[in-house]
Amino acid sequence: MNQENMAKVGIIMGSKSDLPVMQDAIEVLKKLGVTFEVSIVSAHRTPERMYEYAKSAATRGLKVIIAGAGGAAHLPGMVASITHLPVIGVPVKSSNSIDGWDSVLSILQMPNGIPVATVALNAAKNAGILAAQILATSSEELAKSVLAFKADLKAKVEETATEVENMGF
Amino acid sequence: MNQENMAKVGIIMGSKSDLPVMQDAIEVLKKLGVTFEVSIVSAHRTPERMYEYAKSAATRGLKVIIAGAGGAAHLPGMVASITHLPVIGVPVKSSNSIDGWDSVLSILQMPNGIPVATVALNAAKNAGILAAQILATSSEELAKSVLAFKADLKAKVEETATEVENMGF
Amino acid sequence: MNQENMAKVGIIMGSKSDLPVMQDAIEVLKKLGVTFEVSIVSAHRTPERMYEYAKSAATRGLKVIIAGAGGAAHLPGMVASITHLPVIGVPVKSSNSIDGWDSVLSILQMPNGIPVATVALNAAKNAGILAAQILATSSEELAKSVLAFKADLKAKVEETATEVENMGF
Amino acid sequence: MNQENMAKVGIIMGSKSDLPVMQDAIEVLKKLGVTFEVSIVSAHRTPERMYEYAKSAATRGLKVIIAGAGGAAHLPGMVASITHLPVIGVPVKSSNSIDGWDSVLSILQMPNGIPVATVALNAAKNAGILAAQILATSSEELAKSVLAFKADLKAKVEETATEVENMGF
Amino acid sequence: MNQENMAKVGIIMGSKSDLPVMQDAIEVLKKLGVTFEVSIVSAHRTPERMYEYAKSAATRGLKVIIAGAGGAAHLPGMVASITHLPVIGVPVKSSNSIDGWDSVLSILQMPNGIPVATVALNAAKNAGILAAQILATSSEELAKSVLAFKADLKAKVEETATEVENMGF
Amino acid sequence: MNQENMAKVGIIMGSKSDLPVMQDAIEVLKKLGVTFEVSIVSAHRTPERMYEYAKSAATRGLKVIIAGAGGAAHLPGMVASITHLPVIGVPVKSSNSIDGWDSVLSILQMPNGIPVATVALNAAKNAGILAAQILATSSEELAKSVLAFKADLKAKVEETATEVENMGF
Amino acid sequence: MNQENMAKVGIIMGSKSDLPVMQDAIEVLKKLGVTFEVSIVSAHRTPERMYEYAKSAATRGLKVIIAGAGGAAHLPGMVASITHLPVIGVPVKSSNSIDGWDSVLSILQMPNGIPVATVALNAAKNAGILAAQILATSSEELAKSVLAFKADLKAKVEETATEVENMGF
Amino acid sequence: MNQENMAKVGIIMGSKSDLPVMQDAIEVLKKLGVTFEVSIVSAHRTPERMYEYAKSAATRGLKVIIAGAGGAAHLPGMVASITHLPVIGVPVKSSNSIDGWDSVLSILQMPNGIPVATVALNAAKNAGILAAQILATSSEELAKSVLAFKADLKAKVEETATEVENMGF
Repeated sequence: MNQENMAKVGIIMGSKSDLPVMQDAIEVLKKLGVTFEVSIVSAHRTPERMYEYAKSAATRGLKVIIAGAGGAAHLPGMVASITHLPVIGVPVKSSNSIDGWDSVLSILQMPNGIPVATVALNAAKNAGILAAQILATSSEELAKSVLAFKADLKAKVEETATEVENMGF
Repeated sequence: MNQENMAKVGIIMGSKSDLPVMQDAIEVLKKLGVTFEVSIVSAHRTPERMYEYAKSAATRGLKVIIAGAGGAAHLPGMVASITHLPVIGVPVKSSNSIDGWDSVLSILQMPNGIPVATVALNAAKNAGILAAQILATSSEELAKSVLAFKADLKAKVEETATEVENMGF
Repeated sequence: MNQENMAKVGIIMGSKSDLPVMQDAIEVLKKLGVTFEVSIVSAHRTPERMYEYAKSAATRGLKVIIAGAGGAAHLPGMVASITHLPVIGVPVKSSNSIDGWDSVLSILQMPNGIPVATVALNAAKNAGILAAQILATSSEELAKSVLAFKADLKAKVEETATEVENMGF
Repeated sequence: MNQENMAKVGIIMGSKSDLPVMQDAIEVLKKLGVTFEVSIVSAHRTPERMYEYAKSAATRGLKVIIAGAGGAAHLPGMVASITHLPVIGVPVKSSNSIDGWDSVLSILQMPNGIPVATVALNAAKNAGILAAQILATSSEELAKSVLAFKADLKAKVEETATEVENMGF
Repeated sequence: MNQENMAKVGIIMGSKSDLPVMQDAIEVLKKLGVTFEVSIVSAHRTPERMYEYAKSAATRGLKVIIAGAGGAAHLPGMVASITHLPVIGVPVKSSNSIDGWDSVLSILQMPNGIPVATVALNAAKNAGILAAQILATSSEELAKSVLAFKADLKAKVEETATEVENMGF
Repeated sequence: MNQENMAKVGIIMGSKSDLPVMQDAIEVLKKLGVTFEVSIVSAHRTPERMYEYAKSAATRGLKVIIAGAGGAAHLPGMVASITHLPVIGVPVKSSNSIDGWDSVLSILQMPNGIPVATVALNAAKNAGILAAQILATSSEELAKSVLAFKADLKAKVEETATEVENMGF
Repeated sequence: MNQENMAKVGIIMGSKSDLPVMQDAIEVLKKLGVTFEVSIVSAHRTPERMYEYAKSAATRGLKVIIAGAGGAAHLPGMVASITHLPVIGVPVKSSNSIDGWDSVLSILQMPNGIPVATVALNAAKNAGILAAQILATSSEELAKSVLAFKADLKAKVEETATEVENMGF
Repeated sequence: MNQENMAKVGIIMGSKSDLPVMQDAIEVLKKLGVTFEVSIVSAHRTPERMYEYAKSAATRGLKVIIAGAGGAAHLPGMVASITHLPVIGVPVKSSNSIDGWDSVLSILQMPNGIPVATVALNAAKNAGILAAQILATSSEELAKSVLAFKADLKAKVEETATEVENMGF
């Protein structure tokens, strides 16, 4: 595989049941033209695998890691403790979560020294966009893609605005 | 060191600032005659050390681990993921915690497969008692110590009850 | 009944409506080869029965008690106040619970002196595993079962990891 | 002791450290001329004492019980499970409580069949007033005391209202 | 109407949509043989009606008022401010409530001087039982009904206990 | 008193202890040149006074009412139920409040039909500004005062911005 | 368009998906005879459009703005920062919201200087009524409409009260 | 100013009172050798200034923006809506915040399309480290600084571990 095609973003999640939520990160990275890889890595059930994944991430060419998990969600924070790459955490409102509060707090409230860039509950799409924004800090081309994406969001709102204004209440 | 004197309980915490809280576990284990060792192990700042500690715990003769941490508290859960020993988690209301909720939820809400025996916020004393109760499942002598401890608690309440009843409001 | 077949773990719950949740503890103890008994004991509707159950537990040969309850869940804590055996509390998200917060807090936040080993909301499976881990502190054989169980969890994650990696997004 | 002087209200609390809060119930019952007794009864450290207290309450002439406790506060609910007298629960914001939420929820959220008349966090004064209101359902004289108490509250507000209106901002 | 048949308990609620919840209070009072009346009284939409209801309650022969409401639930507290009768508040998890928290807090957290005897979220059954317990402080007969009711609860638990014990897991 | 000097805004609070918080509304109304009156009106201790105040508010010339209260804060909502004037509610974090949550929810979560314009916890200053904004919908002069007030806020931020930019970190 | 028919109230929302909730504001303004306009304005996806809308609102003749949004709901507060008109915020329990808490807190907790008149979660109807009440401070006719609306609410409650009283439980 | 010395990270905050918290970001960026600029930008009091700052950020050479704010904290999200640079949000537990919950939720819960990389409450230090990690995705040198920083954290923990192990309990 040549360097162009190497994955820049690693998307991991604690369980396959998180995939429907994490799919949004996959879609948006595709749309923005960012290469990525996807896998299942469980901090609690496969701690060695988690360690290996995080330890080798930078040398394998990854630049950013997106990690999604729910409940006592330790995956993003533990990966961040092992790698020096920026880690984006996606709190997943999994079936065993207390309305998502545990997922949010156990990803967000990292101690000083080891940040996790946390996005909103279930917001894998925003994790993908943030990964692209991070990579765009050194890529004019990707910066343009992000700007186009934002312009598109704006255009869609303006479209529904016109639609609603013409509804005639 | 002969087997009698080997530590049965490993007490670890994420930071030295947790020591004032965790001290209560030390005191109660001393009182109940349970051997223990104490150290600092940070899941986030020393992940390899954490792995080694947990991996070698059983072979070093430990029977129970008490782990205290605050904020996004991953230490108890991560240790539980690596060892098969029972792990008791003490949520610490550290300075960077949101009133203790993050500490509680990130220790308690472990996924199926990897339990952490969680005690109340800052309740290191209860962690020590629980460790003794666990060891007492195979030690008549320790069971007697725990029963005596409970009898003592009862006696103290009865004493204050008499005191209050005689206050003459 | 010979000693081998005597129940080592007592599983109790406040109401038959908790059985679908508590069933997970039953399944996992069966799988791990731990003997157990199951009953309904209500702290609030049958306080004498609760007292008798807890008081006689150790002499009847039980080593660990798993107690599940929801709402103002007093069963685990009250049983822990009466017996010196380790008590594992399962907060149940029952129909009368406020999203599970009452169940969690009224089991977890026990005062100094009387611990309850609390697991996650509805996590009866983890309660079963924790009971096995406690018994394994004095049983090489059971320790092997727990290790095998953990290896199985790991293998299943690795399987789904391969599956997901081959999905070709 | 003649019947006139027998205690009508039993005030109990889980620990002597709850006395500064529970003192307000004592003061208001004195003011309203309701007889009472005060003691320490811990559900967790003295379960037999708690059982005896609750079981004998009605035959000893008590009509209402006020029970204060903090953290995983089981005292009011357990007493209510044993006696048929109305039990008023005072959630105490004790030092081991998570901002009082555990105290409130573990007293308030009793299952169907066993009510506890819960008042606000630390509101022992209101517990005393409520006890008087309950006894006033069968005492014209006490009803008059309660009405006078309410008239007094009103007069005090009107006084400060005049004071504030004359402040001249 | 002769005095025997006069309503002793007034059951009111803020909206007819609260009736399915409040029905449980009606059923249990019937079962316990306590006379009652039912109506809709809205603190916010019919403040004068609310005032008249509360002001005349005692003279009309009511001894206890049960008030159910949801959201910013002011009915129980406002009725308690106007009458000297004991008021039992039922927090209703209405459609406009934030998971019931607003209903609970706006009923429970009454200021010093004006208590509301608060029961669990949606626990109208417990409100009815509590009303009976209050009336039973001056009625031997009703006390017997309450004791019988509690014995019945106990018998039912024991029945399901036997059932579960015989399930053969 | 001529019409010019009549109070346009009525500022009321449940207790004199709320005055230090509510003082901010007084200051900002003075600054903006809006006439006002101040008093103590307790929904729970002086329900008749509260009714009279709200009922007569419009005829006495008031245009807006600012009501501050804490805990189970019923004053703003009850006043809103009686008058047709806009009512601004200030949740006060009083000593008996659970971190302000009860104050906020019992003011904010009003049922359909009876709005209360709620501002942030303890934000009496914003209540005063909002009252001025409401009156400015029919007063060019007051609109200018509000605009000048906003310009002043902006100028102050710009000043500190320059200060910070020159700090030389 | 003549001045009579010009919109007095601007209703905006962050997304078309908020329309089902915000529809209630539209209905009640129609019923009360208040002119209005409706559009989609997203603080996050169309910040310039938001700025233009808020900046021009007063000069276009609007007197009050109703803004609904969910999650990290910045629209009401940002509009309030730009215009001097009173802004009514409707926290919407959107699909990406954590049970509505984020919507409520990010609208309500505005800093000193920039108030948002916040109504209950999803309470667009109350936002409409509040807008009418604000306009009624300078319109006798509209004040009468609001009073009639309140009388209607009262009549409906009295109707259901009679219905329930005649149910014969 | 030559390109080397141009600020790569813009640190802004809503108020000068946030500076003691945000100072930690300044310190850590200095330590890691990352250039930065600091200013005060208030979303609510200086919306135009905020717009200009965000709009010009990329062209002025900034690569990452760190924005701290408390209460209804709109600054990070609004800046993220205007620029395509990655924005790191620091929820500040300001004096007007409800225990930090409002700060956290109004920064974290951004809608799809506009991410904010949120760090823990008051965790400005982590915001600085995250900014460096982001810049290190295209700078070998900075990556080494981050790795050295992490090694330092590890060494400090190991030092205190030795210290605690030698305490001799």
